[in-house]
Amino acid sequence: MQAIVAPQPDGAQELALVERPVPRPGPGEVLVEVAAAGVNRPDILQRRGLYPPPPGAPDILGLEIAGKVVAVGSGAEDLIGRRVCALVAGGGYAEYCVAPAGTCLPVRDGLCLVEAAAMPETLFTVWVNLFERGFAADGDWVLVHGGTSGIGTMAIALGAQFGLHVIVTCGSDEKCRRAIELGAAAAINYRTRDFVEEVKRATGGSGVSVVLDMVGGDYVPRNLACMADEGRHVSIAFQRGAKCEIPIKDVMQRRLMLTGSTLRPRSIEYKTMVADALRRTVWPLVESGRLKPVIDSSFPLTRAAEAHARMEKGEHVGKIVLEVGLRSHS
Amino acid sequence: MQAIVAPQPDGAQELALVERPVPRPGPGEVLVEVAAAGVNRPDILQRRGLYPPPPGAPDILGLEIAGKVVAVGSGAEDLIGRRVCALVAGGGYAEYCVAPAGTCLPVRDGLCLVEAAAMPETLFTVWVNLFERGFAADGDWVLVHGGTSGIGTMAIALGAQFGLHVIVTCGSDEKCRRAIELGAAAAINYRTRDFVEEVKRATGGSGVSVVLDMVGGDYVPRNLACMADEGRHVSIAFQRGAKCEIPIKDVMQRRLMLTGSTLRPRSIEYKTMVADALRRTVWPLVESGRLKPVIDSSFPLTRAAEAHARMEKGEHVGKIVLEVGLRSHS
Repeated sequence: MQAIVAPQPDGAQELALVERPVPRPGPGEVLVEVAAAGVNRPDILQRRGLYPPPPGAPDILGLEIAGKVVAVGSGAEDLIGRRVCALVAGGGYAEYCVAPAGTCLPVRDGLCLVEAAAMPETLFTVWVNLFERGFAADGDWVLVHGGTSGIGTMAIALGAQFGLHVIVTCGSDEKCRRAIELGAAAAINYRTRDFVEEVKRATGGSGVSVVLDMVGGDYVPRNLACMADEGRHVSIAFQRGAKCEIPIKDVMQRRLMLTGSTLRPRSIEYKTMVADALRRTVWPLVESGRLKPVIDSSFPLTRAAEAHARMEKGEHVGKIVLEVGLRSHS
Repeated sequence: MQAIVAPQPDGAQELALVERPVPRPGPGEVLVEVAAAGVNRPDILQRRGLYPPPPGAPDILGLEIAGKVVAVGSGAEDLIGRRVCALVAGGGYAEYCVAPAGTCLPVRDGLCLVEAAAMPETLFTVWVNLFERGFAADGDWVLVHGGTSGIGTMAIALGAQFGLHVIVTCGSDEKCRRAIELGAAAAINYRTRDFVEEVKRATGGSGVSVVLDMVGGDYVPRNLACMADEGRHVSIAFQRGAKCEIPIKDVMQRRLMLTGSTLRPRSIEYKTMVADALRRTVWPLVESGRLKPVIDSSFPLTRAAEAHARMEKGEHVGKIVLEVGLRSHS
């Protein structure tokens, strides 16, 4: 089968199209004939050698897929022949990919496989961090940076379904306009405005209950300044710096909470538990068409490098997807 | 009545014995004829002008008292004549002190009023931060700095009653020995040992579930290094610095949680809720003699300056108490 890897054994950090044997599903796993695979920022870090796959994961890139189950291991027999999307710890940029049965979500006929492939990574991430770790609840104001990123657009979409008021930051007025169209309660151009002041203004001075942060560094104390009493700050990445300085007095006086999580290294059992929650709570909204991912663009697998270049340029709005065996599924 | 204040109107930071009118209890309040008043570290900060009383609190020092209720406001009639100890937002270093009825805990005949006066501040603080904010649970390992301080000795005592393994740090081998006698699972001399290494050793490499920290500054990243996955870091003071640097990657990868709280500025309603919880869960242990505060020393009210000097010298083990009208209660 065709697959995309990087960095290569010689250390080169360009994506390379390689031939690999079709993997075989083990117990509790399925083999998916991949129709489409989502592109995520961690893929870029992995390409650069900064985010090695966890033990047991393939070196093929890609954290989310959609397609048809063509073979199953023991215990996963009920999925044979089904259209699914799945969260995987690697291996998505390929014609075939093994996925844990527990992280597969059903893709009913009529649902687009490109859209389905664009959901698992951001859906699992936003769900876990906004609701489980950040305790976001109906009526809460929340702040999410990168409003037009995959994470940002999913946070806006999920927030709209669950009664949150989502404030986002974006890097241009045009992106802010798009974020508002998508349902953000407010969108702040961080290049021209002080987001701390703007968040205070948007919330009538009271601040947000949750910040979902992938920026880190000097944004963290600024995020804390945006937060209401008892607010929760949840870190999912640290694009501007892996360390941050926090004001202990503020944490105490306003009883703030800081936490964070990673997804990829977590156990299959944990991811299965999240998928179970999503199947109950979010998936009916997907199946009825009320929750849709925002698709920026799609590229054939062989042009994965262009997909990465587009993400690195930062002009995309929503998800970038690789089309793999899409025609064979239509 | 006699009372102790500082800083004085001219800015002098020595304690001064002054004459003040006996205060009058308002609705929901009681007037306590003070038998004894606990001394706490915030009193020293207040004396130095670094911790002004919250709005509405008297400028008289003192955050906890025990004595007899000699007058009541409306709604607090059932407490008249009772022996109580209470958490107060100020005013404890005096012959009479007004307390909210809701923060009074009963002191049965036979319980020592010096011991009763030594409990509210540390009991409320440790309870809220270890259990409510830090989610400490039966079997958890926890780390508390200042093992022989008022907070430290209360954490050891409460931990013993609720199945926690309390590791403490202390500034001398002698204090470590005392902490172990009091029931600490391990005591680390921070002057001669690296507490991060020692905590790892004591917990068989797994780390603690909760850190109760009053040190701040460079201790915070070291505390985080002591923590197990999903561990909780609760700040209640910042003796070494009000800012700290935290490693976002560790917070994410180990899903750590940082929070903190203050007690004095909280509402009467909140403190009443905590008192209600303590009355149900902890107070039976006090009444049966299973939970006792550790008393370091006591001084007459007129020698409050000596009590402060003793606390500042840092050689005490347990609580320092002022005896006010003790003889009239015996």
